[in-house]
Amino acid sequence: MSLVGFIGLGQMGAHMARNLIKHGHKLIVYDVNAKVLEQFKADGATIAKFPADVAAASKDIVTMLPSSPHVKLVYTGDGGLLETLQPNSLCMDSSTIDQMVSVEMALALRQKQASYVDAPVSGGVVGAQNATLTFMVGGGDEQPVFDRAHTFLSKMGKNIVNCGKVGNGQAAKICNNMMLGISMIGVSETMNLGIRMGLDAKLLASILNTSSGRCWSSDTYNPVPGVIEGIPPSKEYQGGFGSALMAKDLSLAQNAATATHAPTPLGSMAHQIYRLLAQDPNFSQKDFGVVYQFLKEEAKKR
Amino acid sequence: MSLVGFIGLGQMGAHMARNLIKHGHKLIVYDVNAKVLEQFKADGATIAKFPADVAAASKDIVTMLPSSPHVKLVYTGDGGLLETLQPNSLCMDSSTIDQMVSVEMALALRQKQASYVDAPVSGGVVGAQNATLTFMVGGGDEQPVFDRAHTFLSKMGKNIVNCGKVGNGQAAKICNNMMLGISMIGVSETMNLGIRMGLDAKLLASILNTSSGRCWSSDTYNPVPGVIEGIPPSKEYQGGFGSALMAKDLSLAQNAATATHAPTPLGSMAHQIYRLLAQDPNFSQKDFGVVYQFLKEEAKKR
Amino acid sequence: MSLVGFIGLGQMGAHMARNLIKHGHKLIVYDVNAKVLEQFKADGATIAKFPADVAAASKDIVTMLPSSPHVKLVYTGDGGLLETLQPNSLCMDSSTIDQMVSVEMALALRQKQASYVDAPVSGGVVGAQNATLTFMVGGGDEQPVFDRAHTFLSKMGKNIVNCGKVGNGQAAKICNNMMLGISMIGVSETMNLGIRMGLDAKLLASILNTSSGRCWSSDTYNPVPGVIEGIPPSKEYQGGFGSALMAKDLSLAQNAATATHAPTPLGSMAHQIYRLLAQDPNFSQKDFGVVYQFLKEEAKKR
Amino acid sequence: MSLVGFIGLGQMGAHMARNLIKHGHKLIVYDVNAKVLEQFKADGATIAKFPADVAAASKDIVTMLPSSPHVKLVYTGDGGLLETLQPNSLCMDSSTIDQMVSVEMALALRQKQASYVDAPVSGGVVGAQNATLTFMVGGGDEQPVFDRAHTFLSKMGKNIVNCGKVGNGQAAKICNNMMLGISMIGVSETMNLGIRMGLDAKLLASILNTSSGRCWSSDTYNPVPGVIEGIPPSKEYQGGFGSALMAKDLSLAQNAATATHAPTPLGSMAHQIYRLLAQDPNFSQKDFGVVYQFLKEEAKKR
Repeated sequence: MSLVGFIGLGQMGAHMARNLIKHGHKLIVYDVNAKVLEQFKADGATIAKFPADVAAASKDIVTMLPSSPHVKLVYTGDGGLLETLQPNSLCMDSSTIDQMVSVEMALALRQKQASYVDAPVSGGVVGAQNATLTFMVGGGDEQPVFDRAHTFLSKMGKNIVNCGKVGNGQAAKICNNMMLGISMIGVSETMNLGIRMGLDAKLLASILNTSSGRCWSSDTYNPVPGVIEGIPPSKEYQGGFGSALMAKDLSLAQNAATATHAPTPLGSMAHQIYRLLAQDPNFSQKDFGVVYQFLKEEAKKR
Repeated sequence: MSLVGFIGLGQMGAHMARNLIKHGHKLIVYDVNAKVLEQFKADGATIAKFPADVAAASKDIVTMLPSSPHVKLVYTGDGGLLETLQPNSLCMDSSTIDQMVSVEMALALRQKQASYVDAPVSGGVVGAQNATLTFMVGGGDEQPVFDRAHTFLSKMGKNIVNCGKVGNGQAAKICNNMMLGISMIGVSETMNLGIRMGLDAKLLASILNTSSGRCWSSDTYNPVPGVIEGIPPSKEYQGGFGSALMAKDLSLAQNAATATHAPTPLGSMAHQIYRLLAQDPNFSQKDFGVVYQFLKEEAKKR
Repeated sequence: MSLVGFIGLGQMGAHMARNLIKHGHKLIVYDVNAKVLEQFKADGATIAKFPADVAAASKDIVTMLPSSPHVKLVYTGDGGLLETLQPNSLCMDSSTIDQMVSVEMALALRQKQASYVDAPVSGGVVGAQNATLTFMVGGGDEQPVFDRAHTFLSKMGKNIVNCGKVGNGQAAKICNNMMLGISMIGVSETMNLGIRMGLDAKLLASILNTSSGRCWSSDTYNPVPGVIEGIPPSKEYQGGFGSALMAKDLSLAQNAATATHAPTPLGSMAHQIYRLLAQDPNFSQKDFGVVYQFLKEEAKKR
Repeated sequence: MSLVGFIGLGQMGAHMARNLIKHGHKLIVYDVNAKVLEQFKADGATIAKFPADVAAASKDIVTMLPSSPHVKLVYTGDGGLLETLQPNSLCMDSSTIDQMVSVEMALALRQKQASYVDAPVSGGVVGAQNATLTFMVGGGDEQPVFDRAHTFLSKMGKNIVNCGKVGNGQAAKICNNMMLGISMIGVSETMNLGIRMGLDAKLLASILNTSSGRCWSSDTYNPVPGVIEGIPPSKEYQGGFGSALMAKDLSLAQNAATATHAPTPLGSMAHQIYRLLAQDPNFSQKDFGVVYQFLKEEAKKR
């Protein structure tokens, strides 16, 4: 098997890269964190000094980076992938970034006779670890490109969705997370209101979950501590998906809404609320279900 | 079997009353609509001239009325139920009204040694017709009262939920519908944004429905025409649950939120949006999924 | 001069009553606070045991109470004004309350051949002290009633506005304060955004104040500490108009908006924001300009 | 006097350029509209084929363009200013654009030993015609640059504000217009609510204008037809500042808020509301005061 490039070995990326290794791939990796590079060296991976070294050595490259500027730097910066990218290479970018940046990267790669898919994920750190991620793939409208990406992505996830043209992966991810942010705040408001009106929390959840108010944020990830055991809201909002990350995804949704002139009154308000949380040290790093505590009186009195 | 009273033979009430008749109950009924009274007379029901006539003739009474003032009038107005209500009567009020009015009615009935449950429903006209309604019962904390109500409600619905003390039925209904209003607008914004970003509507719905953005408004009642066949959004928003009714339920939620000092930023915004629709003759009487059209550009250009 | 009744000697009412005394009126007063009654006794006022005692002794009565339920109790409760109210009495209610309650009180008084004006004030504790309040008078459509009220109100304020029929005083007050809540949050957002974009606070304020962004919350009561000296925002938000009171006024506006089906998206959001502040012990009792600190990052980090 | 360059002869720019001519300046001009170029040729101006021709012939250049991409194109595109820009040139950009683009242009010019100020305006078409514009100047922290810009800007406006470093002009403009959008919607909600509560429109306006609800959108540009004569709201919202332009400025504010992590709940909601208007052919091109009609019932029924 040929060498696979992997750039971005953070909380998600490290697990994903290890799943490729488990399936027998040999890796050449790059990250800014020297310590994690040492660990991958111990696991048999080749260490690159620059992204360009990765592109020089491999034609199948996965990138998993925190935001649009990082992606731009890794692809088009000094020592970036584009400096050495070989014809017929495929870059699979699993970062959640601005749709426009994905489109821009794809165009830049095309000029080098290389392909690009945007393939952001859902499923979190646990999904990354267990290879149960969902990949939302944009750029799979060319079937051979999708099939080639599938070879690698299917070793890191269980659900590889072909969303069509480049950028559509980002669109799907951003849309899902905007809906998620709205419904999580909605459930938090609803549970808080119902409890104040005299309802038992578990009873209210069970009514919602069997009625038209049903949603993932209520039946699978209810933000009220104790309603569902074992999830972050029942563990003091430790772990899970941080409020600051939700604020970031909602800002991508707002950028997209502005660019496409789509009215999003609730998405916009959800963004503002998570922005308030993201700047509050009591809430910023906690699971995004903590918006329930933000809305609930007693939490503020602590 | 003793005579059962039924007041309020509108779109919902008429079906509910007929289901009691189907189960062998003899009814004494009251409504302001003479025509519908004629129909029930033809079906063997006794016709009352005033609510007080119902209470004089029956100790088990169901009321199904459009709003708080109607309930007050029927119970405590001139010729109202309280004038003739017999000790040990049970009034089951299936109206969706202000929680405070339910509590007030219960107190007034208690002074007459009578019981009251608030038992608002979900399931719509179809559920009323097919006796598949869900009843959310407040006042069932006294088990004999709940059991007695269950005898009748179970003939009009399939799911009779004991929500605890008086008013909790209203709380459950209002909370569910606030969540429903939020998620319907959220799904409408999300679908519109995704489509503008280039995604296929059915593909986007399928991604949401298998991800954390999943909710009833997406997987069962998607507001984009053609995504799910056979529901009002695919039939030009005819039938279903009208925008003006959603505006009413959201206003009850806002009243409750103000009374309990519960912050509800999205619930509040959802109320404002449906209030805009409720005053627009193009949207007011259409199914509440029509908010998708309100947000979508082309609809406005027609 | 005949005896004037005064009920409600709180922060505002005590100053207002003293201004009547200064102008030579003899007062009969009622309050639930025994201590403040002692002070008024020392100032020569007659002390009433119940509101009914006030109505028995005086035909010109001012009430200044915190909320709708208090007004109902004082007028129509046990020992209330209505028990002893004399024909041709005039009650001037300066409380800020639900418009509907004002209308209800006026109707009840009319049955006793008495008149009622709703006359809520703006100008705060300082205005009450210096007799510079503005009174917004509803019920002044009958000129003799307005003229009679003017005799008393003009000794407690400098601007007595005839707003027309009963309830219009409340309408004017509620509308002004809804606009005030919106513009205060708007200025807070704007100043915070501009400062983060690199602008000097005073320069930004001066640009707004000479441009179309100009408003009272910017040019007279700027919420950024130090921009305007001597006002509560420059004194750690001590004194002034508390956030919890703003939340109350905004809830009255929302009740009115729901009753009249008026869409108020920003008024509704402003209400939600002050409701969040009202439940936070760091903000609740501080001047309503403190919303600037709520929105500003560093404040949360303290 | 040396030749002055002027690029962008639209509704605003044409008036501004003519004011320079009135003060004796000789102009070299560029626009995409051939017809307007003919008019300027008739007025004695030299016509350029490309922006680069302007920069080759002049060292003092004003640009007045509709949006960020236009600015980028004129400065850095093929045939753009940068191709021929002479050392010690000064570009004065009066476009309202993204702050980041202003900073980017300034950096690009610095590499050519040239200076850049962002100098967006307020005052509208009337202000452009009468040379009464306000210029908000960023980049004036270097006094000689500000003085040099002042020479030209003072012939097109009456108020030239030094806002400090590059980008601060955009910041000031964007902040003012965000506040303006918020207060215009706020006044519209307030006037509509008050009128529905029974108040006379002019009376309500006069109360706001002498109270803490006072603002430019109420006392100078009240959106209710007939309250103030001679302004667009009293002329069926013809002329004035279009809703679509307000939507654009509010989107710039949202971009800036996201970039600086500033929470702007009302600014965000105002953006959403003007976005709804901008996509509605009944409202898009009308004066932004038309939001009053959007909120008011009867308008929708037409």
